[in-house]
Amino acid sequence: MTRRSPDDPIKAADPLTRNRFPIHPWRFTEAEYSSDDLGVTESLFAVGNGYLGMRGNVEEGRETYTHGTFINGFHETWPIRHAEEAFGFARTGQTIVNVPDNKTIKLYVDDEPMLLSVADLESYERSLDFRDGLLYRNIIWRTPGGKRVKVSSTRMVSFTQRHLAIMTMEVTMLEDEAPVVISSQTLNRQDGRDEYHVRSAAMGTGVDPRRGVPFETRVLEPQSHWWQDQRIILGYRCANSKMTLAVGVDHQIITDNDYRTFTSADEDTGKMVYRVQAKPGQPIKVTKVVSYHTSRGVPNRELVDRCRRTLDRVLEHGVEPEFAAQRQWLDKFWERSDVVVHGQPALQQAIRWNLFQVAQATARAEQSGVPAKGVTGTGYSGHYFWDTEIFVLPFLTYTSPQMARSELRFRYNMLGAARRRAEELAQSGALFPWRTVNGEEASAYYAAGTAQYHIDADIAYALCKYVAASGDQEFMNREGVDLLVETARLWADLGFWRENGTGRRSFHIHGVTGPDEYTTVVNDNLFTNVMARFNLAKAAELLGQLEREFPRAYQRVAERLELGAEEIAEWAACAESMSIPYDEVTGINPQDAHFLDREVWDLKNTPADKRPLLLHYHPLVIYRFQVLKQADVVLAMFLQGDHFTKEQKRNNFEYYDPITTGDSTLSAIVQSIIAAEVGYRELALRYFYNSLFVDLADLHGNTSDGVHVASTAGVWNILAYGFGGMRDYNGIITFDPRLPESWAGMTFQITLRGTRVKVDVTSGEIAFTVVAGESAELAVRGEYFTVSAGIPVRVSLADQGSGIDGPLPSRTVDRRPDGTLITASVPQAVLLGR
Amino acid sequence: MTRRSPDDPIKAADPLTRNRFPIHPWRFTEAEYSSDDLGVTESLFAVGNGYLGMRGNVEEGRETYTHGTFINGFHETWPIRHAEEAFGFARTGQTIVNVPDNKTIKLYVDDEPMLLSVADLESYERSLDFRDGLLYRNIIWRTPGGKRVKVSSTRMVSFTQRHLAIMTMEVTMLEDEAPVVISSQTLNRQDGRDEYHVRSAAMGTGVDPRRGVPFETRVLEPQSHWWQDQRIILGYRCANSKMTLAVGVDHQIITDNDYRTFTSADEDTGKMVYRVQAKPGQPIKVTKVVSYHTSRGVPNRELVDRCRRTLDRVLEHGVEPEFAAQRQWLDKFWERSDVVVHGQPALQQAIRWNLFQVAQATARAEQSGVPAKGVTGTGYSGHYFWDTEIFVLPFLTYTSPQMARSELRFRYNMLGAARRRAEELAQSGALFPWRTVNGEEASAYYAAGTAQYHIDADIAYALCKYVAASGDQEFMNREGVDLLVETARLWADLGFWRENGTGRRSFHIHGVTGPDEYTTVVNDNLFTNVMARFNLAKAAELLGQLEREFPRAYQRVAERLELGAEEIAEWAACAESMSIPYDEVTGINPQDAHFLDREVWDLKNTPADKRPLLLHYHPLVIYRFQVLKQADVVLAMFLQGDHFTKEQKRNNFEYYDPITTGDSTLSAIVQSIIAAEVGYRELALRYFYNSLFVDLADLHGNTSDGVHVASTAGVWNILAYGFGGMRDYNGIITFDPRLPESWAGMTFQITLRGTRVKVDVTSGEIAFTVVAGESAELAVRGEYFTVSAGIPVRVSLADQGSGIDGPLPSRTVDRRPDGTLITASVPQAVLLGR
Repeated sequence: MTRRSPDDPIKAADPLTRNRFPIHPWRFTEAEYSSDDLGVTESLFAVGNGYLGMRGNVEEGRETYTHGTFINGFHETWPIRHAEEAFGFARTGQTIVNVPDNKTIKLYVDDEPMLLSVADLESYERSLDFRDGLLYRNIIWRTPGGKRVKVSSTRMVSFTQRHLAIMTMEVTMLEDEAPVVISSQTLNRQDGRDEYHVRSAAMGTGVDPRRGVPFETRVLEPQSHWWQDQRIILGYRCANSKMTLAVGVDHQIITDNDYRTFTSADEDTGKMVYRVQAKPGQPIKVTKVVSYHTSRGVPNRELVDRCRRTLDRVLEHGVEPEFAAQRQWLDKFWERSDVVVHGQPALQQAIRWNLFQVAQATARAEQSGVPAKGVTGTGYSGHYFWDTEIFVLPFLTYTSPQMARSELRFRYNMLGAARRRAEELAQSGALFPWRTVNGEEASAYYAAGTAQYHIDADIAYALCKYVAASGDQEFMNREGVDLLVETARLWADLGFWRENGTGRRSFHIHGVTGPDEYTTVVNDNLFTNVMARFNLAKAAELLGQLEREFPRAYQRVAERLELGAEEIAEWAACAESMSIPYDEVTGINPQDAHFLDREVWDLKNTPADKRPLLLHYHPLVIYRFQVLKQADVVLAMFLQGDHFTKEQKRNNFEYYDPITTGDSTLSAIVQSIIAAEVGYRELALRYFYNSLFVDLADLHGNTSDGVHVASTAGVWNILAYGFGGMRDYNGIITFDPRLPESWAGMTFQITLRGTRVKVDVTSGEIAFTVVAGESAELAVRGEYFTVSAGIPVRVSLADQGSGIDGPLPSRTVDRRPDGTLITASVPQAVLLGR
Repeated sequence: MTRRSPDDPIKAADPLTRNRFPIHPWRFTEAEYSSDDLGVTESLFAVGNGYLGMRGNVEEGRETYTHGTFINGFHETWPIRHAEEAFGFARTGQTIVNVPDNKTIKLYVDDEPMLLSVADLESYERSLDFRDGLLYRNIIWRTPGGKRVKVSSTRMVSFTQRHLAIMTMEVTMLEDEAPVVISSQTLNRQDGRDEYHVRSAAMGTGVDPRRGVPFETRVLEPQSHWWQDQRIILGYRCANSKMTLAVGVDHQIITDNDYRTFTSADEDTGKMVYRVQAKPGQPIKVTKVVSYHTSRGVPNRELVDRCRRTLDRVLEHGVEPEFAAQRQWLDKFWERSDVVVHGQPALQQAIRWNLFQVAQATARAEQSGVPAKGVTGTGYSGHYFWDTEIFVLPFLTYTSPQMARSELRFRYNMLGAARRRAEELAQSGALFPWRTVNGEEASAYYAAGTAQYHIDADIAYALCKYVAASGDQEFMNREGVDLLVETARLWADLGFWRENGTGRRSFHIHGVTGPDEYTTVVNDNLFTNVMARFNLAKAAELLGQLEREFPRAYQRVAERLELGAEEIAEWAACAESMSIPYDEVTGINPQDAHFLDREVWDLKNTPADKRPLLLHYHPLVIYRFQVLKQADVVLAMFLQGDHFTKEQKRNNFEYYDPITTGDSTLSAIVQSIIAAEVGYRELALRYFYNSLFVDLADLHGNTSDGVHVASTAGVWNILAYGFGGMRDYNGIITFDPRLPESWAGMTFQITLRGTRVKVDVTSGEIAFTVVAGESAELAVRGEYFTVSAGIPVRVSLADQGSGIDGPLPSRTVDRRPDGTLITASVPQAVLLGR
């Protein structure tokens, strides 16, 4: 697969090898087996529903980068041992647990195991189908003894029944008869024998903070094991977190061949073995129905019962209705969410793979968060970050608002822990943890963790966007308001007022880290201040509105939160006078108060093998330079674009883009959207490819740790916001498209207060059609209108963006606020090739 | 004992309870036993020689805060597990090991154990004698059966034989006869059964990063155990560091009573038991001779042999010559080092206790460093820091130059590791570890660790001071030059040039932490820049001098270090144009480029139970404010005072003193010296008391973890530099005394190029007398002169400092660089009393 390197920037061209991964509009297909990149393909072919996820391990179980079955939020805790302690440091580590695995269904013909890496495969195809939500594999295998066997299997994690997964395997001897053994297994693999070995070995060669922390001791304590007929149920409890889990499997075999069954179970293993005397042409079809139930502490026997009930229900009516329900769920999902790029089949496939990943990460997450890797891997330890609010929620808000609401309720439920964390940090209000599973701060590196206070504003931002788009004022008034108030409180307390000589007071926020983790603990980080301003203003605005429109609700809120008019007025004042770094000379917004004092890192002369920087330089080295992991000023211009002039946007983009490494997968999304807005259309398209293929082409080299969920949702953001030119400041939806010149057209849909509007963009016009519901208020380039059912609106567009192309002007060198001069430079060690 | 609190600032008054700790000019004596503060008294009565140290545990062994026998540099390593990893983070933890203990000599009379906490003591006295270097204890005990027993013991760690300790116990039945058992023990206690339990319990109630990290598993692996007659030898190896240790004990009994002996040893225990049929008036005298030998990897049997040889040598001539040698060594030490404050017996005792501690921490440290707690406790894990160079080495340089040289050679021997660390941090030259035992960085918290680059300059500073005072140019030319060059290289590479509009270039150092750890990772930290300037200038100067005066030495150095004229010129240029923060409006030097942008922490309104701040606030909270652990600008004005005007010094002192918490014990030293210089004489005296009684009155509440060695040496610094008004910029020794008004006079001595000069200061004059050697060049208030053997010099002094007293003017509030106004404030949580 292609690896991105700084000397070989991604082009707006398809990076996939198409004889291996052929183009198909609705499937991601592998036509040739390879064991060279198992880690990547296991992530790419993972199936999940946001609650339960299974990596795309092969059924045979042997060849693997890492086995993995994950349940969102099911985690073990461990005491963080800081080599040097300090007050308020995170104390409890939280790591998603690799739960007992059910993917292995081994096949033996003539007692010979099928092992893909050495098997003589007459044909091979593996496909993840975006319409029916199944992972398929179809093989014709010539056994060492020369017998041809057809092996077809499917794997599905149900979108409609969150505790349910179904696997099938159908084996047919094509010409010969043979003894066939099918061995379906349930394995608790986690005691350091396989994937954790891989992980430790990998850790040995270097340090990658993006991986999770491996366990060193047994995590899942066996609680019960039981089997009867073709059913097996195992129960476990996490040693420290005391979370409980039960996993049940039920099997069915349909065949006209003679067979015998053997069932067994012990503490860490369940086995269902079929010994079949297979005749040619007589298929053997085994169906495996799997159920996982988990809880924070419900006794194991209760979870065992729940597994039983799930399995019984499926047993009653068979698996076919589940497949149908899956298809139906996805039909509706695509109806609401699909984006069509006309005449670009390769892109089309990749776009749908990405959107499908968002569905797999969020569909049934319900009141859990969305882990950075969804339920596809252990990267980032299964933690929830800000990415969900900023990159995933826009997509959900405009296509599946109910799911957006679930995510926000998850944050609401964390409010108690966030209040305690604020207190620990000597602040009022609530401070949401930078990374967490259970609500407690789990970031042991505060400079790029706890110091990212902006997460508070990110949550407030996502909340306001959801309420504006959905019209769900009731949620806002009942629960959202607490989030808005407690986050606003944090900001008002965290910052402080300064007066300058002329008597003008401004509000400053010091000692925080913005999304760009390549500088930390800075003063007046522009992104943070812009977002905190929004947070403060919205809180004041909402309470004003409540007081006017819902006085009794206001009264309840005021009492519950001990709110007074003075405090609310203070928020408005803080927002009004928020300090926003701006440099007169360059006309840019410095990333923080002192950003321009730093040396400029010369990225052009940094060798490819020193990227990403975070894996090759001590943080102190990186922090000393103007060099970005992701450009958070550019992100601020996206999220709060109505607060920047056109010229500022252009200047900022041109300043920051050349010093942005894109070492975060979130970077390309934002660079693409703003490149499109300010007129770098070719660059916008390149960044789009960069996002689109983050995982599909393993551009960051760590897809094996799981799919980058925020990036997959980012693809939608680029399409709708970047190329569609959509903006939604203050709940007003406007468009100013930037369709790539090479594209014939693009269609996407957005749901606004229950009305679904189809948006068609071509180079000459933009058209809006209500496809469900009544009507919606929209605007194109400042012209407001209403689009109603049956009355589409078409707007002609003369041109789309200024279309500047070619290299960016060099703004970073020779230009300093006070006329001072800095030459771009690199650490000594870079030049020496250390 | 007294605890300092912000509401109860230390006064210039004796804080000790004198009926318990009576005043004696040459002894620190305890006249009443108490088990309430065992941790503190164990540290105060510890004996050591800089190599081997024994806490002042009672002989009976039972009642204890923590047993402790330590060998400087004898450490175990352990992998640091960062909860979040990053490139270049310290990997190997290093912790001083509590070695097998020999202090326990149990006494039973009529089979009743003597236990001080319940014993009926007719008389009790414990004394540490500064002249003969022995710890004495004299008791008359009335046994439960009513028999009176006289018990006298001594404990000595030899200053002349670094591997040797001697203990004696003499027991006399005064009126009755009785069976007496004396059981001398060698115990490897470290397997988590006693002091480590205490420690863990203490850790549980809160976090104190100043403590060491406890071990969780067995450290010392037994290698051998052997006994014969009255001798026992045990051998061990550290599980990870593979350091080896042997401990041998030999016993002697002298008595006219009948007795039997029993000797035994196993892996973790050696026992020598005397069963005596004691007659009244017949003393039983047991002598225990102990030898420790350690190494980085010499096989155990070799160390066992070394123990044997040490013991045999003592056996040959008996212990009396060792006591005599100890006394002789100390006679010479005091001859060189004593400071006499006339007419202040309580101060006199405390001063000598402090100076004696320096001797105990450094005498035989030889080419090891000086741990922050010497060999008296496990605080700071036995690590070496910058304190040695800045606070301990001045005392050694002017009183025991040979010891100063040893310490500098220790740094020279670490140069290889420091070069590797610089490379890891992407820099040229050498970067000394912030904390270490074995030369590798062990600070896992880089913001207040690795980021303290100033340690490089601190070493260079101590080196230049030593060479100037001793005249040991040979050491400089042969080894010191490498230190100077590699540290200068680090600075030249770490910083960068900026040009301002007017074409003036200046040199900046970004992203470093100064000694004040209450702000971290700042730009142009004044202390760092001032000290780096010194380092760069001195390196250039030395090489210029070498080239002129020792061309062949220069050639060798230039080749060895690949030096060229251009690089040397660059250092001079960097020094010349070093950026030194200065604020025109307030007339102060901001602690760093953006220090004045911070809010001012209102210390007056911070409750006592929130001190020290580091134990009650998250670093992010502390870092956001103008509040100091120690005032590093003030320290810079002490070390590089010739670069500041009188007015700057006064302004800076007045600005920083009110926002300085003194949460570091180093703080009071520096505040006292500069308070004296700028004229706050009463405040200088209060800070002096603060330093003098840091341990004696447990002012920081953690003396139980060991003696604050830098603070004990700081006492000399205040006496010589603060009250004596000595300065030594560029090797020129000048005086401008500030004798406290309540003092009749003070006498101290300094050794300059082999000549020892006695300095007498009274309120009316300063007098210099050569007491050994030829002559010395000195100056008083700008008047230069030579003092020669037999020709004392007396200089009349009209007044000593301006003598401003009363409260400092409030400079921190209402005064901002650009006229802006900030009001002092405290975090919300402080006011709420959280």
